[in-house]
Amino acid sequence: MSLAPKAASESLTEMVQVVLPNDANPMGFMLGGAVMHLVDIAGAIAAFRHAHELMVTAAVDGLEFLNPIKVGDFILLKARVTATFTTSLEVEVKVYSEEALTGRRQITSRAYLTFVTLERDGVRAPIPPLAMETDDDKRLQEAARTRRAEHLARRARSQDG
Amino acid sequence: MSLAPKAASESLTEMVQVVLPNDANPMGFMLGGAVMHLVDIAGAIAAFRHAHELMVTAAVDGLEFLNPIKVGDFILLKARVTATFTTSLEVEVKVYSEEALTGRRQITSRAYLTFVTLERDGVRAPIPPLAMETDDDKRLQEAARTRRAEHLARRARSQDG
Amino acid sequence: MSLAPKAASESLTEMVQVVLPNDANPMGFMLGGAVMHLVDIAGAIAAFRHAHELMVTAAVDGLEFLNPIKVGDFILLKARVTATFTTSLEVEVKVYSEEALTGRRQITSRAYLTFVTLERDGVRAPIPPLAMETDDDKRLQEAARTRRAEHLARRARSQDG
Amino acid sequence: MSLAPKAASESLTEMVQVVLPNDANPMGFMLGGAVMHLVDIAGAIAAFRHAHELMVTAAVDGLEFLNPIKVGDFILLKARVTATFTTSLEVEVKVYSEEALTGRRQITSRAYLTFVTLERDGVRAPIPPLAMETDDDKRLQEAARTRRAEHLARRARSQDG
Amino acid sequence: MSLAPKAASESLTEMVQVVLPNDANPMGFMLGGAVMHLVDIAGAIAAFRHAHELMVTAAVDGLEFLNPIKVGDFILLKARVTATFTTSLEVEVKVYSEEALTGRRQITSRAYLTFVTLERDGVRAPIPPLAMETDDDKRLQEAARTRRAEHLARRARSQDG
Amino acid sequence: MSLAPKAASESLTEMVQVVLPNDANPMGFMLGGAVMHLVDIAGAIAAFRHAHELMVTAAVDGLEFLNPIKVGDFILLKARVTATFTTSLEVEVKVYSEEALTGRRQITSRAYLTFVTLERDGVRAPIPPLAMETDDDKRLQEAARTRRAEHLARRARSQDG
Repeated sequence: MSLAPKAASESLTEMVQVVLPNDANPMGFMLGGAVMHLVDIAGAIAAFRHAHELMVTAAVDGLEFLNPIKVGDFILLKARVTATFTTSLEVEVKVYSEEALTGRRQITSRAYLTFVTLERDGVRAPIPPLAMETDDDKRLQEAARTRRAEHLARRARSQDG
Repeated sequence: MSLAPKAASESLTEMVQVVLPNDANPMGFMLGGAVMHLVDIAGAIAAFRHAHELMVTAAVDGLEFLNPIKVGDFILLKARVTATFTTSLEVEVKVYSEEALTGRRQITSRAYLTFVTLERDGVRAPIPPLAMETDDDKRLQEAARTRRAEHLARRARSQDG
Repeated sequence: MSLAPKAASESLTEMVQVVLPNDANPMGFMLGGAVMHLVDIAGAIAAFRHAHELMVTAAVDGLEFLNPIKVGDFILLKARVTATFTTSLEVEVKVYSEEALTGRRQITSRAYLTFVTLERDGVRAPIPPLAMETDDDKRLQEAARTRRAEHLARRARSQDG
Repeated sequence: MSLAPKAASESLTEMVQVVLPNDANPMGFMLGGAVMHLVDIAGAIAAFRHAHELMVTAAVDGLEFLNPIKVGDFILLKARVTATFTTSLEVEVKVYSEEALTGRRQITSRAYLTFVTLERDGVRAPIPPLAMETDDDKRLQEAARTRRAEHLARRARSQDG
Repeated sequence: MSLAPKAASESLTEMVQVVLPNDANPMGFMLGGAVMHLVDIAGAIAAFRHAHELMVTAAVDGLEFLNPIKVGDFILLKARVTATFTTSLEVEVKVYSEEALTGRRQITSRAYLTFVTLERDGVRAPIPPLAMETDDDKRLQEAARTRRAEHLARRARSQDG
Repeated sequence: MSLAPKAASESLTEMVQVVLPNDANPMGFMLGGAVMHLVDIAGAIAAFRHAHELMVTAAVDGLEFLNPIKVGDFILLKARVTATFTTSLEVEVKVYSEEALTGRRQITSRAYLTFVTLERDGVRAPIPPLAMETDDDKRLQEAARTRRAEHLARRARSQDG
């Protein structure tokens, strides 16, 4: 598996789905959990496309639900790798609703997912670093590093307690 | 609803999914019917994006399965409107497999789906015509018109018999 | 595996299902893709019953949707083998809706599916020929052979271009 | 809705399905609950076909699982009305497994389901009586009446206690 | 695997689920078959928790549906082992509906499921006996033994005929 | 709807499920997204049980996946309300795996979900406050308030930028 740097543009992932009745509550709004399920899948596809390694979800950050999505509308997910660490990476997933009869799009969620590689002989497999191409790339990577530092600090605190 | 011409690029639809065990036969290959289900959804999203009208599937043409897709791999679908008629349109859907661990892509199916609008007061709702932008657009429209002519001829024959 | 001729009546397959909300669009009509999924399963069962060999879907022809099926109604599928070729066969699948509260039946789709055996040591497994029993058998076989010839011609054309 | 007697042959229901991985335990055997789900659907279709009234499941008797069904095999269900009472009826459902590659069939379950009509203005809707045509019809009706008497006796006992 | 006696309290199982549209008929009431599916899962979890052996469903007794459950409400299942026999055990499953907006609970079903261990080298694996702790335990065990005797008698009768 | 204080013990929710093949990746480990889906359902049931008001998921915090869950094992979820605010509340959901054949339990995830009531006439419906009963209750409420303050600070920052 090559470990040469790869640009975020090489693993960009776009998914679209029709929202079906079983994904919704009786008011006809898509369940938060059904959105999360798709967020995880979109994120995982971007992670695999970057690393070409078996990876599993390790953490989810900053997931908010800003607007509801109705049954019969489309849910659109855009996932991009924001930062890589030796054996893990972070993916940003943005979720949009798209009204089937008007095409009106609205952002409904954003989340940051961390995926880690599996151990082989007791060592996690390394992944290619992310090549920085644009100012946007750098800004997203900076924010990802901050989230990771907060994660590690939180974990250290919870182990002290 | 505006009936101004729209380019095929405005309704291009790209879907990606992980192939799960329930979509596959015991050999681990994705069921033809599970592929068809996604082909119909991708086609319907492109149709809605073009027409912004309620439409239902009327016919499927030329659907072939060229290569199998394995559980755990990604299925990628690309749908584009190829031709419009007064109250119906044709969408081409191409299906690709993408190996999760290598990124290797392969075309696995191609199909042409016809969607029609629903009746309102006994008349089917009209849809915007397709704006021709490239030579490719014209070639695809020509082939779609041939398929439609064959359809109408076949239907005439079967009503004679 | 015996390769003695078998009659179409030996592999006739009849399936019935209740249409559930997740199979339908928000208007309450069964999705084309959900119908296709069942068409493929009914066809595959008839193919297995004839060949008793592992087979996969290779092509779908002439699939039209004539009438909608409503949530809560029954979908009825009848599949029969129409013709066999050395390592493949064609199945006709007819789809009917049946209203739960009146029993009223209506044909809603018809399709022709081709299934092929898998390769063993580089050679596709052969299947038993279809025994002709009635005039209907012969008429259906004739039509299947015409469709197959058209298929091969179309494939030859597309490889020329 | 006509209340003229109807023969059991008019509502006979036959269903077939491929057993998918999600219907099975990790050993690859179909879950009892997945079988029960299909038994209820097959029974309900036969009940609707007889009564053409909205009916709901009221009880299940004598359900046993005699042989396991494997993923990839077919599950075949045969449902027939055995007896009618003023506003309810009993359906016998027999379940068979069918090996996809050999066609070998084996009975795997048998169950008796009671369906009742819903109330309209506080009164349950009546249903057509079952016309007796064969000795088999009479034998099945007799057994159904015995089960019903046992039901009523059991319910009376449990209300005493 | 230890065969020391275990109390019913050690394998008590409580499940809760939201009723989704696909589990319901068009009137919005949960399908009997969808209830049965959950009854089997709840019963199986209790059986595994008692025996820590692979077990499969062998029979279902006394399943009645007393009250409907609506889409959007919760279904609550409580499963407890009632009696053990050398290589099988019986589980009682009680089902309740719980209205999401009022919390109102109502019993909707009760059933008795028998699970048996699988054969290893032609012999079914034995399971731990049930320790009797309360009068309730004894009463439930007595009733389970009566049901089992009726089962065996019924099976003997059906083999005679 | 009464707004009298309610203890966390009144809305405690415990769910258990068998992990099925469709919830897992090809290595047989439960997908992060499938876990999230159940976390949201367990959290929503606890939220409804406390508020008896329609509520939707607004945010998810601190979701980590510590250990994998295998197909065939049980997933156990325990949800409890940790803090209430005028029209929203926070639920802690802890996830455990339980091995079917040994009963071995392990914590696999913990998450904090915020649910908000829907607007009626432009105003979100109020919910009952949480009654503090134990030191544990107070500690959890304190942590929930800290998370909420961080949320609001983050949202203020992101609106500045």
